[in-house]
Amino acid sequence: DEVFRNLFKETTQHLKEVFQLPEGYHIAFTASATEIWERTLQNLVLDKSFHLVNGAFSKKFFEFSKDLKLNSEAVIKEFGQPIQQSDLNSIPRETELIALTHNETSTGAMLLAEDLEFVRRQYPNQLISLDIVSSAPSVKIDLNQVDSAYFSVQKCFGLPAGLGVWIYNDRCIEKFKEVHSKKTTGTYHSLGTLHEFALKNQTPETPNVLGIYLLNEVLKDLIRKGLETVRRESIYKSTLLYTTIERHAELSPFITSKIHRSVTTIVANIPNSKQLIDKFEKKNMIIGAGYGSYSDKQIRIANFPTHSKEQIEFLVDELENI
Amino acid sequence: DEVFRNLFKETTQHLKEVFQLPEGYHIAFTASATEIWERTLQNLVLDKSFHLVNGAFSKKFFEFSKDLKLNSEAVIKEFGQPIQQSDLNSIPRETELIALTHNETSTGAMLLAEDLEFVRRQYPNQLISLDIVSSAPSVKIDLNQVDSAYFSVQKCFGLPAGLGVWIYNDRCIEKFKEVHSKKTTGTYHSLGTLHEFALKNQTPETPNVLGIYLLNEVLKDLIRKGLETVRRESIYKSTLLYTTIERHAELSPFITSKIHRSVTTIVANIPNSKQLIDKFEKKNMIIGAGYGSYSDKQIRIANFPTHSKEQIEFLVDELENI
Repeated sequence: DEVFRNLFKETTQHLKEVFQLPEGYHIAFTASATEIWERTLQNLVLDKSFHLVNGAFSKKFFEFSKDLKLNSEAVIKEFGQPIQQSDLNSIPRETELIALTHNETSTGAMLLAEDLEFVRRQYPNQLISLDIVSSAPSVKIDLNQVDSAYFSVQKCFGLPAGLGVWIYNDRCIEKFKEVHSKKTTGTYHSLGTLHEFALKNQTPETPNVLGIYLLNEVLKDLIRKGLETVRRESIYKSTLLYTTIERHAELSPFITSKIHRSVTTIVANIPNSKQLIDKFEKKNMIIGAGYGSYSDKQIRIANFPTHSKEQIEFLVDELENI
Repeated sequence: DEVFRNLFKETTQHLKEVFQLPEGYHIAFTASATEIWERTLQNLVLDKSFHLVNGAFSKKFFEFSKDLKLNSEAVIKEFGQPIQQSDLNSIPRETELIALTHNETSTGAMLLAEDLEFVRRQYPNQLISLDIVSSAPSVKIDLNQVDSAYFSVQKCFGLPAGLGVWIYNDRCIEKFKEVHSKKTTGTYHSLGTLHEFALKNQTPETPNVLGIYLLNEVLKDLIRKGLETVRRESIYKSTLLYTTIERHAELSPFITSKIHRSVTTIVANIPNSKQLIDKFEKKNMIIGAGYGSYSDKQIRIANFPTHSKEQIEFLVDELENI
């Protein structure tokens, strides 16, 4: 109804403002970023995508391509290694879509803006898909350089899980049409159907309306506060955290290359993570364990806009006292 | 983590209690009932499903089979006609899955319990999928008669949209394995992956946790109040509504066959629905318009557990005063 159409319109306009989307970029809502992995491969790839894999999430996306019986390929880096220009030179020319992760949540490695620009220059004919799940909008990313970008709202937006945001451009629509004419692209959440409804400020199914409403409220807050301020504060907090970790006798940053260190998910090595996590839990501070097999050897500290400077300063003091 | 696994376990146990599910029936969460249409066809049908279509929602499910390039067939009834045993005699034997709708939300036609039993007896080798979106759990349905049933939480459970509940049995798992060995069944939400995670009280992706939490709370309320009471009250309220509609000079029930009239979505013909809807809106009572092209010729009144006897009695008084 009209109330929902207005909410859809307002929320997508705020998203376009926050991400400074140029003409020809559109927004659709899904249930999760995980869903967008599936829809991307199903709707934008006929035969072959190429994945830059350097952690658990980029790996999962690549694995989806096998579930869908595509002939996709990947560069698979060691866990924690950042993607570098040397990884981006050998992408096969027949690749239809290049999948990049801006911030690998599992390792805390970030992609450099200049490397993203490099991919765009080198592969003007391929679609570029960028996972911005755990860094948007805390880190400025030039979405002009990509054709598709996506996130879920439970990271930097601090909202309950259950909503994915898909940003896609007209080149994606063109590619979808080609794929759709040759194979099955799904049903209610094909990019074509999502786009058709989005043009009317609607969704194909009854969506997570509460999630969209809350996202719009957070976007208004972010715009009011100013993205510049949010981003400056994010860097201030991450700098504090990395400095403390570097100086600390028991801690060391997992990502050794300073320029590739994530602003939003700070990962540190530690001999026994559980002890430290328990200690902080008693002080009502939740620190994450390392991902997967790194769970007892690493900690992961989230640095999202909801985490205030004061909280991080307090956390840093407590870390220093160990 | 453990908190979520406990919530998953408790919620599914409460669902099994409310729906009196026998051994060998399982539960998975999706983003919507719409998603379950897609997953059902993608995971449980190799070539041909059969759809009993008698309204907008059963029609949509049938259309999904065409999007997925299946060779599905359907009996297509006139809008508002209930499904009867004569419609159920001619289902092709090679059908893999029979799709029935317990309560057509668009028309207010309900499937009889005896007709569901008839289908089960006649087609013991086919999977039976039952849409219980707008009637569960207000109407008692014997889910022993079906292999798959599903609903979304924004109807009788009165919750924010964004969560689908899929009930499936071991026969579905067996069929999934066959389909999976022969074609693509999706990725993170294939029935196999959903089931594998459900067995560990987990979900493949970060789900709508808030939705699951709220569903569990409503289930606890329903169990405390007693399903018998909820169902008796639903019948009391629908009887009041239909009696009023039948007596009314300007209104008449859309479903002429009394035994097929929905308990939860009451649809009535009226010369000018907008006038009545506007009048009630001023009194803070939301009455739905007819579905699609019936929007100005019909009203639809929801009779869910959240609607108290007093509210319906008040509504009935107001209807009589027109």
